[in-house]
Amino acid sequence: MENQCNITEFVGVNPTGDTIGLVIANVDQQLLEAMKLEKSYRSLGIVGARTGAGPHIMAADEAVKATNTEIVKIELPRDTKGGAGHGSLIIFGGDDVSDVERAVEVTLKEVDRTFGDVYANEAGHIELQYTARASTACQVAFGAEVGRAFGLIVGGPAAIGVVMADTAVKAANVNVLGYASPGGGTSHSNEVILFISGDSGAVRQAVISAREVGKKLLGAMGDSPTNSQPSYI
Amino acid sequence: MENQCNITEFVGVNPTGDTIGLVIANVDQQLLEAMKLEKSYRSLGIVGARTGAGPHIMAADEAVKATNTEIVKIELPRDTKGGAGHGSLIIFGGDDVSDVERAVEVTLKEVDRTFGDVYANEAGHIELQYTARASTACQVAFGAEVGRAFGLIVGGPAAIGVVMADTAVKAANVNVLGYASPGGGTSHSNEVILFISGDSGAVRQAVISAREVGKKLLGAMGDSPTNSQPSYI
Amino acid sequence: MENQCNITEFVGVNPTGDTIGLVIANVDQQLLEAMKLEKSYRSLGIVGARTGAGPHIMAADEAVKATNTEIVKIELPRDTKGGAGHGSLIIFGGDDVSDVERAVEVTLKEVDRTFGDVYANEAGHIELQYTARASTACQVAFGAEVGRAFGLIVGGPAAIGVVMADTAVKAANVNVLGYASPGGGTSHSNEVILFISGDSGAVRQAVISAREVGKKLLGAMGDSPTNSQPSYI
Repeated sequence: MENQCNITEFVGVNPTGDTIGLVIANVDQQLLEAMKLEKSYRSLGIVGARTGAGPHIMAADEAVKATNTEIVKIELPRDTKGGAGHGSLIIFGGDDVSDVERAVEVTLKEVDRTFGDVYANEAGHIELQYTARASTACQVAFGAEVGRAFGLIVGGPAAIGVVMADTAVKAANVNVLGYASPGGGTSHSNEVILFISGDSGAVRQAVISAREVGKKLLGAMGDSPTNSQPSYI
Repeated sequence: MENQCNITEFVGVNPTGDTIGLVIANVDQQLLEAMKLEKSYRSLGIVGARTGAGPHIMAADEAVKATNTEIVKIELPRDTKGGAGHGSLIIFGGDDVSDVERAVEVTLKEVDRTFGDVYANEAGHIELQYTARASTACQVAFGAEVGRAFGLIVGGPAAIGVVMADTAVKAANVNVLGYASPGGGTSHSNEVILFISGDSGAVRQAVISAREVGKKLLGAMGDSPTNSQPSYI
Repeated sequence: MENQCNITEFVGVNPTGDTIGLVIANVDQQLLEAMKLEKSYRSLGIVGARTGAGPHIMAADEAVKATNTEIVKIELPRDTKGGAGHGSLIIFGGDDVSDVERAVEVTLKEVDRTFGDVYANEAGHIELQYTARASTACQVAFGAEVGRAFGLIVGGPAAIGVVMADTAVKAANVNVLGYASPGGGTSHSNEVILFISGDSGAVRQAVISAREVGKKLLGAMGDSPTNSQPSYI
């Protein structure tokens, strides 16, 4: 992830998900107004990807825990290069460029871990995420409660996500924070996404149960789904 | 379409359009609330696809005619795996799992027929659908009148759909129920879609006229467009 | 671009962006109402593409300058055949079919020029557009002021567009007309887009500065980005 392009704003890339990390030390005031951010910051950290929203938001969640930055905005393009899901645009704000640069670096590194429970084949993908203690990236993007356990369950094509969601809530005593589908809560991606909270053991158990069902259902549509990074849940 | 994955919820797959059919016998109450369905059902049937909305909705229309189920929700992701159109998520509701399972089975089978007038090449696709007697899937998704003839005319890229639509309404005495385009009525797909009703002969004639023009226009952009299943109109 | 398909409505194709140009001499009244156009026209010219919105709108801008037509509607599907951006559907209106046909011909031809500053690699694309004197296509699509210099700066994945935008506004004294991103102003494309106006020299300088940064950042994600047509800015 070294600077390969001799541009001050460049922090690094992670080939997983076609991810790039950038910083702006002193953002132009006219641009800042046009971006309609809720808070003004001197320095912005920017992480973008063609493939992956959950992995990048979970990675950014670790970054805000580890740095003196805030999540300014999270947007989800309909992307994945022809796949069923989202890409991402995550913007960190801080008063010092070294802070936002560090947040971007942490995010680029954490993406290796958070892609661990993304399983894909030619027919689609499933994704699972889990944290024992959510921070503000999960709060902004998913409505998670800061400091509590949080889980994310995704299936694409969306039909698989419905059954994964049902499996998850039956497997353990968890709270449903939200449900997103092609017609609402997604950017018209072909996914059903469930957001859950609860005791950390229960959330983890719900996520694991959904994973087992999701892998088998997606596998019935094509090859056995595989992850590009080691599972972390 | 046999159960290849040893999951109770699995009904079958149809490789055409990457289609999967699933059931939930007793849907979790918390999930049901999060899904914000207008009616509550004990059992859900779920059909999802990466490629195809029209074919799956027309197939589901036959399924509701043939079974004791209702259409609960139809959502259209922007998908087709890099193509110009939609995928689909169709949810059936019923009081008995055998009813919704049967609806899913009928849909999976009918998709072979309803892909018959989807013609594609490397530049895009056109799609035609026709029924002499629309049921509630066409009503929910397209505003069709139940029991009357209904026709669907799709061209992607959208420009082709405009000329197909004009050709259709000039070819026979039909009523325009609706018009969908990238900016409204689609999930930002690259399609123009016309929904028509009228006497069955007129609707069929309008659809056939649009098909001939659409095939030639799409063919001018690349190879001669082909259908993967036999034409049924 | 000769008529290869023996349909009256066919004007021509441009393989760049999978672009097709069509006309309807006397549009059906029922269709016209369903399309909900703000003004009624006897003749419509239609340009559609799978890949490219900026290039086609800039080309259409030259077409309205050169012909007795008006821009009736511009819509942006989320397309590019698996890429990060938009396709397009542009509709011209006129009282005479020869006028709209001429507008479509000019657009098809100008697209060769306006793709000149679209640079792409396997990770995404950047796009720059510039005109010394904007016309009504830029006004309708981008909020440009007719008769003034206008510039367009696009980066996909969106993160690159943020830094390109910041670079542009710092490089010269320009006005920001608008900012579009995956969550607003785009059709959920993976792009950040900046619209600028000002003195022609300043707009051109801002665009060129953004291009240099954008090419290097996109190049850090993969191969060196290339344009399929000669640069015109």
